[in-house]
Amino acid sequence: MLPFRVINQKTIEQILDMKSVIEKVEQAYTLKAQQEATLFPLVFHEFEPGKADMDIKSGHLTGANIFGMKLVSWFGGNTEKNLPQLIGTVMVLDSRTGVPKGILSGEHITCMRTGAAGGIGAKYLARPESEHLLVIGSGHQAPFQILATLVSMENVKKVSVYNARSYERAEAFCEKIQEKLLNMIALQFNDQDELRETYSKRCQIEFVPVENIEQTTREADIIITATSARQPLIQKDWVKPGTHITCIGADMEGKQEIDERLFPGARVFVDDVTQSVNVGELETAIKKAIVTPEVIVAEIGEVILGRVAGRQSAVEITIFDSTGIAIQDLLTADLVLAEAEKLGAGTVVEL
Amino acid sequence: MLPFRVINQKTIEQILDMKSVIEKVEQAYTLKAQQEATLFPLVFHEFEPGKADMDIKSGHLTGANIFGMKLVSWFGGNTEKNLPQLIGTVMVLDSRTGVPKGILSGEHITCMRTGAAGGIGAKYLARPESEHLLVIGSGHQAPFQILATLVSMENVKKVSVYNARSYERAEAFCEKIQEKLLNMIALQFNDQDELRETYSKRCQIEFVPVENIEQTTREADIIITATSARQPLIQKDWVKPGTHITCIGADMEGKQEIDERLFPGARVFVDDVTQSVNVGELETAIKKAIVTPEVIVAEIGEVILGRVAGRQSAVEITIFDSTGIAIQDLLTADLVLAEAEKLGAGTVVEL
Repeated sequence: MLPFRVINQKTIEQILDMKSVIEKVEQAYTLKAQQEATLFPLVFHEFEPGKADMDIKSGHLTGANIFGMKLVSWFGGNTEKNLPQLIGTVMVLDSRTGVPKGILSGEHITCMRTGAAGGIGAKYLARPESEHLLVIGSGHQAPFQILATLVSMENVKKVSVYNARSYERAEAFCEKIQEKLLNMIALQFNDQDELRETYSKRCQIEFVPVENIEQTTREADIIITATSARQPLIQKDWVKPGTHITCIGADMEGKQEIDERLFPGARVFVDDVTQSVNVGELETAIKKAIVTPEVIVAEIGEVILGRVAGRQSAVEITIFDSTGIAIQDLLTADLVLAEAEKLGAGTVVEL
Repeated sequence: MLPFRVINQKTIEQILDMKSVIEKVEQAYTLKAQQEATLFPLVFHEFEPGKADMDIKSGHLTGANIFGMKLVSWFGGNTEKNLPQLIGTVMVLDSRTGVPKGILSGEHITCMRTGAAGGIGAKYLARPESEHLLVIGSGHQAPFQILATLVSMENVKKVSVYNARSYERAEAFCEKIQEKLLNMIALQFNDQDELRETYSKRCQIEFVPVENIEQTTREADIIITATSARQPLIQKDWVKPGTHITCIGADMEGKQEIDERLFPGARVFVDDVTQSVNVGELETAIKKAIVTPEVIVAEIGEVILGRVAGRQSAVEITIFDSTGIAIQDLLTADLVLAEAEKLGAGTVVEL
């Protein structure tokens, strides 16, 4: 019988703070760059095309002695059933013995590690003096992108939020986001007064719904796209020199958020070359032969390690195509397991 | 928050009886034959070639409204660490909503469903009057093969057990097998006196360690191979007309238990054509061009459904190449979950 820890979403929300998750996701990227991480082939199945699917992403982190998988279900019809559309679980195992360490609710881990990716993109590729963040998308992921960027970029003092379908939703988002961020921070740093104070102050900035996306794009220093769009929402001509763009949304064939003509001439980084080329924001640009995969300067881990320069001038456009990789989830989940063990949180079952 | 049931090995040992598992595995085979089951691509990773690996087998059973996966780790060095070499978990989800139903210890489920496969091979392909079962291999899987065959074949009254490396181990196995079977039956039918009685009586037969494998093969009616062999242990010339052979061991490239020359002229069935051809007992025969995949008459589900005849004469040799498919585990695990819910067994966690 082997002890096995089960951790639900509520516990994870209490345990994970964005600063620690950013560290873990950076570690995931650098382990990958050091060949101490392997992604296994993706398993993807559509139950009903466009309505319900599932995928299993798995991998091994030699550098952290863990392997495991994340299984995510997406069922579009769940809303009517009062169930979440996206449901995920992450299982972590010890790669020295194969023993399962635990299973965790996957939603909050995914939100946090995806937010962290956006923060890391800005941290390593945006101009340090960047003041204005434009977030494309006002859905579930947007608050995590904002929090991670605020944690990573000390000069950001204005956040514009764009919803391509509805100005009203962006407006409603902006009305509530400060309270939401403060609640997240209060939970995340509930026993660390100083950090809670620091990050709470960080949220005392301007949140503005976007009416004119062209105009706001012309003013933004950092753009993060986090939508499920299949058509570009940002045109090349709108983007000013020196802008950094992180593309979060594209993670399967056919998804696209930015004008593919932005890639030629930009300094482009990815989390995983294979995924970016096949299912990331780069997919369309490559399929349309606007660029070849050689446009990719490096995986972001190389920049974090200092092996490859990130931004090289104040006027170039940098792009980080983040598709999401299982090892981000695994390292984040392993952090939760370690903290939960210290706190005696979660349910321990003898398997 | 979603309720999620965690079930450990001990509970599974109490819940699962071989008769019910045979029914579930037959259902898995027939759903597959009716195109109501899909196997997803296998994920396989070697941590250290020949020393440690893991695989993720997953699939969907439309006919049973479930999907899920089994993750199995094999770490050869675990024995020194007082840990099992093989460790597995099975996760079952509802395929109408994507909601995880539970996670279960995988070892006993695997043993039971693999035993059931052997029983089903004999039930549908052996001569009904078969009296003598020869089991090749005296390891962990052997008792399950024996129990399933005794449950399925009422005339079997002698079981010979062969260990290619050590007669002593086969001898020790035979000394203890009756007690072991009675214990399993007592657990499995602990609240069903009549069945417990019936099956306990069924074990009052002869168990004989094999000294001369050629001689015993010539006498056997049913042969089940359950080893990790990479060289044939049964030669073609030894096998008498009318014998049924179920090959359990071969489930990855390079494994082989019976003389590949047994396939031409035999009536051959498999659990899954792709797996048998690529990693099953058939692999070597096909690679050596002794037969083509056309030697496969059908998947066993077709026989269970009565769409394809199994054995057609008392003198032909029948072979069932069982490689093991995820949907066997999923249906068996789902049975455990249903029973556990009735009994209030296992640990329920809100995810």
